[in-house]
Amino acid sequence: MRALYFDGSTARLVERPEPQPPDGWCIVRPRVAGICNTDLEILRGYMAFVGVLGHELVGTVVRGPDAWIGKRVVADINFACGHCSACERGLGRHCALRTVMGIAGAQGAFADSVPVPVCNLHEVPASVTDEDAAFCEPLAAAFEILEQVHVHARTRAIVLGDGKLGLLVAQVLHAAGADLIAVGKHPQKLAILERRGLCTCSLDALGDRRAELVVEATGAASGFEQALRCVTPRGTIVLKSTVADPINLHLSRIVVDEVSVVGSRCGLFQPALRALAAGAVDVASLVSHVIPFDRAEEALRLAAERGAMKVLLSMR
Amino acid sequence: MRALYFDGSTARLVERPEPQPPDGWCIVRPRVAGICNTDLEILRGYMAFVGVLGHELVGTVVRGPDAWIGKRVVADINFACGHCSACERGLGRHCALRTVMGIAGAQGAFADSVPVPVCNLHEVPASVTDEDAAFCEPLAAAFEILEQVHVHARTRAIVLGDGKLGLLVAQVLHAAGADLIAVGKHPQKLAILERRGLCTCSLDALGDRRAELVVEATGAASGFEQALRCVTPRGTIVLKSTVADPINLHLSRIVVDEVSVVGSRCGLFQPALRALAAGAVDVASLVSHVIPFDRAEEALRLAAERGAMKVLLSMR
Repeated sequence: MRALYFDGSTARLVERPEPQPPDGWCIVRPRVAGICNTDLEILRGYMAFVGVLGHELVGTVVRGPDAWIGKRVVADINFACGHCSACERGLGRHCALRTVMGIAGAQGAFADSVPVPVCNLHEVPASVTDEDAAFCEPLAAAFEILEQVHVHARTRAIVLGDGKLGLLVAQVLHAAGADLIAVGKHPQKLAILERRGLCTCSLDALGDRRAELVVEATGAASGFEQALRCVTPRGTIVLKSTVADPINLHLSRIVVDEVSVVGSRCGLFQPALRALAAGAVDVASLVSHVIPFDRAEEALRLAAERGAMKVLLSMR
Repeated sequence: MRALYFDGSTARLVERPEPQPPDGWCIVRPRVAGICNTDLEILRGYMAFVGVLGHELVGTVVRGPDAWIGKRVVADINFACGHCSACERGLGRHCALRTVMGIAGAQGAFADSVPVPVCNLHEVPASVTDEDAAFCEPLAAAFEILEQVHVHARTRAIVLGDGKLGLLVAQVLHAAGADLIAVGKHPQKLAILERRGLCTCSLDALGDRRAELVVEATGAASGFEQALRCVTPRGTIVLKSTVADPINLHLSRIVVDEVSVVGSRCGLFQPALRALAAGAVDVASLVSHVIPFDRAEEALRLAAERGAMKVLLSMR
């Protein structure tokens, strides 16, 4: 099979042996796969991952239980043991023994055949396009905030960052009823939100406005300090950026103002699929390129360009 | 009046003019006042405070409304404006315009006369001794955790630090039903908890045990890293130490394990007074010295000794 393989220094489209799924696993043939900033971080050494990249996919089940063959699916990327205390609490995405598709110990999605545990599959409703379904994983990560923080109509929120995740988070919080300002640097990205009635502004224009919920989705090391500046006392900062570098931090500000800092990563796929089926979130506007899989190396370069939006690989 | 005055470099017992309380304020004559680690931090420059030190007191109202004269009281240390959005939400301790007794812009408790807003007073039940009542402020800070985090019988908790605040926090969480281990370096301090049936151990003996609630009350810059090591994924770290120095921190661990970090400072006095009246918390064992106010400078030195317990000043 073809696969975009990262050998620890370079990512190349190469020929790899077909994966042999263990019992309880199936093989998904990707239709569309999305390139995530995490993939680009891995190219810089994040997670020390070596292998086939990619973890955002929609595809068709080609091997596995009869009931699943031919179905169009998305797949939870955390492959959990199913038996530990985290798994027993329904938190397989925190299983200490988990592998993670294209990130930690498991083959990724940028290949003709992707092995996935059957229990990780979710069928995609017919009304959702492949391109939209490919956003299921990052959209689930945005919905994760609603699992962790009670967001309601009286929640004033600031979302820092107008990258792909920031735009998804802003839409999800807005749909949950929050009174929200999305803060970013790119007018054409913020325009995606404005078309749906969201308030947006630049960091300068934000001035000294504060909110009790601040989502840090800038992807930059400076994002946390910014978030501290615009959260109210007793407020909550949701941290979405995984920044490899350490930051220098005065914890006393967190203590004195009794700020809560909530780390937030992967979420459940069900609310994301429901939102896509309902058209509650505009993900199509976030796509800048759909590139045939044969040109995957070029696609990686496009995704790494400054200000890039979502680059999708088409395997259809 | 006599007052323990910090001039920015040295704290000395000096003669100061009687304070003239504005409308709505009263004068409390302290009976007993406690020396807190924050007082010692102020001597090292924390908050850049200059003035009369001290914020833990129990005393008698000697000037003010007739209804309060002669009453034995404790006093909330945050003097709020009463009108801002924080005050309107009942969070006067986060009022942006607040002054804080002996910490920020307001005279402290180590004096013969202490000005306090009448609305900050709480009458002390007759069954509570002066020495116990002097713990109301730090005990309220321990109870603050219960305002911020839902602690219940299935909560596994680790309290890091066997200083005064750590011992109060451990007792409060234990009384709230948590399944708790208190971790410290001082067997004689941990024995106070063991006498009340709490589990204790050293950091070495803790090994790789983890809990979903970890309270960092070590007072040391290294405490946060320790807390990160023993919190479970999706767990909560309550930060109690105000450490002046910045720390170097990898935020990605917080994001990947979806840890919540909750800063925690002052609390409400009511639950602390109720606990003292009920004998639900042993504070008497935390007292190592009761020193007459005339020897306040010596008392400060005693409180600053390594491993010191609570030093109380007696003004009776």
